Amino acid sequence: MPLGDRPGDKSESRYCGVETEFNDDVPHLLTFSISHGGFDFVVAPLMVPSYRPSLVCKNSGGSGALPFAGSDLVLSPSQWSRHVVGKISSWINLDSEDEVLRVDSETTLKQEISWASHLSLQACLLPAPKGKSCANYARCVNQILQNLNNMQLWLRIPLVKTEDDSMDVNSDHLIDSWEVWNSFRLLCEHHSHLSVALDIQSSLPSANSLGRWFGESVRAAIINTDGLSMFVKAPPEANYWVFNHSIQIVLSGKPVHILPKGSVDVAANHSDDIDGGPGHPLRPYLDYVGYLYQRMDPLPEQERFELGYRDFLQSPLQPLMDNLEAQTYETFEKDSVKYIQYQRAICKALLDRVPDKEALTTTTVLMVVGAGRGPLVRASLQAAEETGRKLRVYAVEKNPNAVVTLHSLVKLEGWENIVTIISSDMRHWDAPEKADILVSELLGSFGDNELSPECLDGAQRFLKQDGISIPSSYTSFIQPVTASKLYNDVKSHKDVLHFETAYVVKIHNVARLAPSQPVFTFTHPNHSTDKSNDRYKKLQFEIPNDTGSAMVHGFAGYFDATLYDDVHLGIEPSTATPNMFSWFAIFFPLRTPVCLHTGYSLEVHFWRCSGPTKVWYEWSVTSPSASPIHNSSGRSYWVGL
Amino acid sequence: MPLGDRPGDKSESRYCGVETEFNDDVPHLLTFSISHGGFDFVVAPLMVPSYRPSLVCKNSGGSGALPFAGSDLVLSPSQWSRHVVGKISSWINLDSEDEVLRVDSETTLKQEISWASHLSLQACLLPAPKGKSCANYARCVNQILQNLNNMQLWLRIPLVKTEDDSMDVNSDHLIDSWEVWNSFRLLCEHHSHLSVALDIQSSLPSANSLGRWFGESVRAAIINTDGLSMFVKAPPEANYWVFNHSIQIVLSGKPVHILPKGSVDVAANHSDDIDGGPGHPLRPYLDYVGYLYQRMDPLPEQERFELGYRDFLQSPLQPLMDNLEAQTYETFEKDSVKYIQYQRAICKALLDRVPDKEALTTTTVLMVVGAGRGPLVRASLQAAEETGRKLRVYAVEKNPNAVVTLHSLVKLEGWENIVTIISSDMRHWDAPEKADILVSELLGSFGDNELSPECLDGAQRFLKQDGISIPSSYTSFIQPVTASKLYNDVKSHKDVLHFETAYVVKIHNVARLAPSQPVFTFTHPNHSTDKSNDRYKKLQFEIPNDTGSAMVHGFAGYFDATLYDDVHLGIEPSTATPNMFSWFAIFFPLRTPVCLHTGYSLEVHFWRCSGPTKVWYEWSVTSPSASPIHNSSGRSYWVGL
Repeated sequence: MPLGDRPGDKSESRYCGVETEFNDDVPHLLTFSISHGGFDFVVAPLMVPSYRPSLVCKNSGGSGALPFAGSDLVLSPSQWSRHVVGKISSWINLDSEDEVLRVDSETTLKQEISWASHLSLQACLLPAPKGKSCANYARCVNQILQNLNNMQLWLRIPLVKTEDDSMDVNSDHLIDSWEVWNSFRLLCEHHSHLSVALDIQSSLPSANSLGRWFGESVRAAIINTDGLSMFVKAPPEANYWVFNHSIQIVLSGKPVHILPKGSVDVAANHSDDIDGGPGHPLRPYLDYVGYLYQRMDPLPEQERFELGYRDFLQSPLQPLMDNLEAQTYETFEKDSVKYIQYQRAICKALLDRVPDKEALTTTTVLMVVGAGRGPLVRASLQAAEETGRKLRVYAVEKNPNAVVTLHSLVKLEGWENIVTIISSDMRHWDAPEKADILVSELLGSFGDNELSPECLDGAQRFLKQDGISIPSSYTSFIQPVTASKLYNDVKSHKDVLHFETAYVVKIHNVARLAPSQPVFTFTHPNHSTDKSNDRYKKLQFEIPNDTGSAMVHGFAGYFDATLYDDVHLGIEPSTATPNMFSWFAIFFPLRTPVCLHTGYSLEVHFWRCSGPTKVWYEWSVTSPSASPIHNSSGRSYWVGL
Repeated sequence: MPLGDRPGDKSESRYCGVETEFNDDVPHLLTFSISHGGFDFVVAPLMVPSYRPSLVCKNSGGSGALPFAGSDLVLSPSQWSRHVVGKISSWINLDSEDEVLRVDSETTLKQEISWASHLSLQACLLPAPKGKSCANYARCVNQILQNLNNMQLWLRIPLVKTEDDSMDVNSDHLIDSWEVWNSFRLLCEHHSHLSVALDIQSSLPSANSLGRWFGESVRAAIINTDGLSMFVKAPPEANYWVFNHSIQIVLSGKPVHILPKGSVDVAANHSDDIDGGPGHPLRPYLDYVGYLYQRMDPLPEQERFELGYRDFLQSPLQPLMDNLEAQTYETFEKDSVKYIQYQRAICKALLDRVPDKEALTTTTVLMVVGAGRGPLVRASLQAAEETGRKLRVYAVEKNPNAVVTLHSLVKLEGWENIVTIISSDMRHWDAPEKADILVSELLGSFGDNELSPECLDGAQRFLKQDGISIPSSYTSFIQPVTASKLYNDVKSHKDVLHFETAYVVKIHNVARLAPSQPVFTFTHPNHSTDKSNDRYKKLQFEIPNDTGSAMVHGFAGYFDATLYDDVHLGIEPSTATPNMFSWFAIFFPLRTPVCLHTGYSLEVHFWRCSGPTKVWYEWSVTSPSASPIHNSSGRSYWVGL
């Protein structure tokens, strides 16, 4: 039974499970928890907790059956797989100094996982590592992962508070549970079937420390009844995160609150008991979590539109080499916010260029370079109308298919006397006169990555000396991120090429570790003597101290463009233009993720390089230690001129 | 003209070059340095030092020829390639804050390398990075390396002393030149055409700091006349290293010593001037270096035998699954030292087991398990003769081909009444009586890696309760090493499999970063109740503080075996049995080399695991940060049962 509906978020159902004690009567456990309790699944121990292989061997010679809860026949196969998550014995300790306990633990773990596979369970909950050192536990789990088909392993990780000022890298007194997870998953090579079940207890770490989990593969949040108030009090982004990232909620513990009846009205329709017996003690908690979920703000329209794109890696467009399809034009033309900004910029430029008294006598020559199917032509003409300025427009477009649409647009709108259509690449067009204003929309997610600089440099020869380019400048930005999902998707290709490629992506399951910083800036027109568009930038990122150690899987990239004067357009998170959907972020991966310990800064280098036929980026990290230079000579990823 | 001959070291010629100033008359430079000076090659600038691309562009419009020293026609192609190493302009600084200088530097570097490639030079000397930050220099060199055919690039690195007590990881006041190199080569991904030209100046770092270079790709040692005394005073292992690792020597600087005539007598035969003109000012230095080389101790016989195997990766034998060839038996049987140790151990065991007064009445039953072609049978019979004890020998061998040889040996020697040959696998043989002494040589480079434990456990059932196993125990050892050559050879396969394999290798171009530590121990006979041969060991290595940071490419592995009582046999460096050549070391690589900063320790885990048909190792690092677990479930490398 899902947590209920929330407007606009039907794509991912929310389920809620309950952690139970060992119970040999599994059918009864299900009736009690699911039919009576209203939960969707149980997280239940699979084996008698007192079982120890070393004792069995000596007593019975190991000939008896293993003491599992029930047999596979007590439930139907679909009941097992839909309603039971296996809870691995919590006494196991594979890193104990006691060799008997260590060997018993390994044997039990393997037997229980084997049993869970036999039952086709969807997931098993692995107990939390007992200390900082968990190499042998990880080694055994990693062996299991090599032979696992579809089952997920959820490693239980208590959400332990870290001290804000722990600067001593060698201090042993405090365990940061994120570091335990980080070590475990590195040992298991980011295996995609290994994820985290975060155990929310009676305290919470700092917001920065908590934020690291936003980029991790968290599949379940175990909310202890003790920790429910923490969950409610957590920063809104944490609640938002749990409810927006396909995270299963599992309630755990004994009831400790008297929950007000009023707060759970929304969920009251499914709180009646089926057979009139005593209700499940955690039922009020379930209803309360459902209430928390349903009272969340509805998803904004833009996010709803982008749901299907979340964390999905796309290759950037090559609009210079390839011609866009009608479908692509269609999508981008719908982004009204963008064209409103362009219109505002053109208005300001026209007013600056032509004083009121010359409005009727002066005709401004405006060229739209890369006119596509005409949205910027329309914005220009609307700006002329708005400001009462006279315009002569040239619409330059290299895609002959878009030129067809342009012609019919001009005819339809009756713009024949104002607009001249030029079917040509702006870099080679021989213009009959020079322009006052050059308008273009050639920007990619990383600003210059679709070669706007090279195109506008080529068009600059038909711009008057004092002419205006809209946009007048643009800057790219990057920030380091934890992004285990994106990293794993890149890694799945098993080659270097995909690690040396930048991807357009709607980043979602990502932790932003530091504010973004500017990388490359281009200004148009470019009157400097140095016409090179090659760039080199060295950046230093400091991670806040209360974050703790963090993992950098790569860099999220953005741009911000100044169209004209104070009119800007962009996706850099702190200044992003609201409700604009033409651009997702760009993601530059790292071949080997960089673990950044508290107090260390991250030094990053980005280059924009060019050859006769292509432009490419190279990137590397040099501190805390040097990475390879990614994409040397554009060997893996480049944009064709 | 090589440095002369040294007994036993004819395999690699030693050459000596000289660093020169810019000289436009290259033929004269060669006559002076090579014909008169006696050097083998010159390291000469290729371009006028005052050249700056940014100045040229403005003055001449860039239409003139580049100001190279001479043209390609002034020397024959083979003269260029045999006698000239290109010295890249030392003024270049690709990491300067001054953008004009930075761009000029990149242009010049590319022009000079392109010229050197045109001339088919074998190597170019790149100037030392100007500071700690060298990412842009590395980026440019890395681009060049992507398109280089055969030319080597030698990066000049001054051998700068590090302070012993520099514990502050953020201290900027001192540059450890090894770290500059490390950063540079990581950025260039350990490219095999990039190597080091170590510049030996007027001071030397500590022996530990110096020792790091033993595992690096050092192709040249530039000895300044200022630094010659340092070279002479350096620890003997440093001199030994320079002269034993295919390192070209380059003399540099102005004469500053009056070298005693007597010391150079050995080289006097080639110090006469051809045309009676003034001699080369560095000629006495050349003669002195030749003298230093020739006065070195001759190579021991064992090292001469092993020359061809240096740093050559071999797959370990699988003697249990495969049968050895006659050639392999032949080689191992020649290792007389090993059989002398066995004979000593058997003597001691016989004397302990049979008192003098029973010598004539008691017959000891001795079984050689894995008898091969009989060397241990011979050692046993010699021990019996030496001690006057009576013996009944069973020679058990699973290889039917070796059994043929055994039969003819027994017949030839007339051992028919003493020796019984059993053609069987020791694990399955049904013995007619029990043995007093079990003798075997089943050890691999890592002790148990050829499955001695499993074989001897299988044979133990026909050993008397108080019987003796020779060997009675064995222990494996590992130590972390810098081994860029081995790392590169593993990496060249471009897959994970080769990084998860252990290799038998005569390690040579390797820096041993810490003393080796014991890993797994096996004792025979094994009377404990736990018969498992699975093992798990966690090790902590501390690198001496005066080493500085260091790179761990993997682990060198060894073994030491106690044959009986105080008679041991092994290859662990601190206790190795002298002049024994049956075993090289074993090398466990790391998929990503671990950079160990000063003050951090290295935590390493090794597992010995087993399944029904195979035994394998897994290994990982967990500190300073976690590596993947290597070879999970034996997916890449295993030994068949």
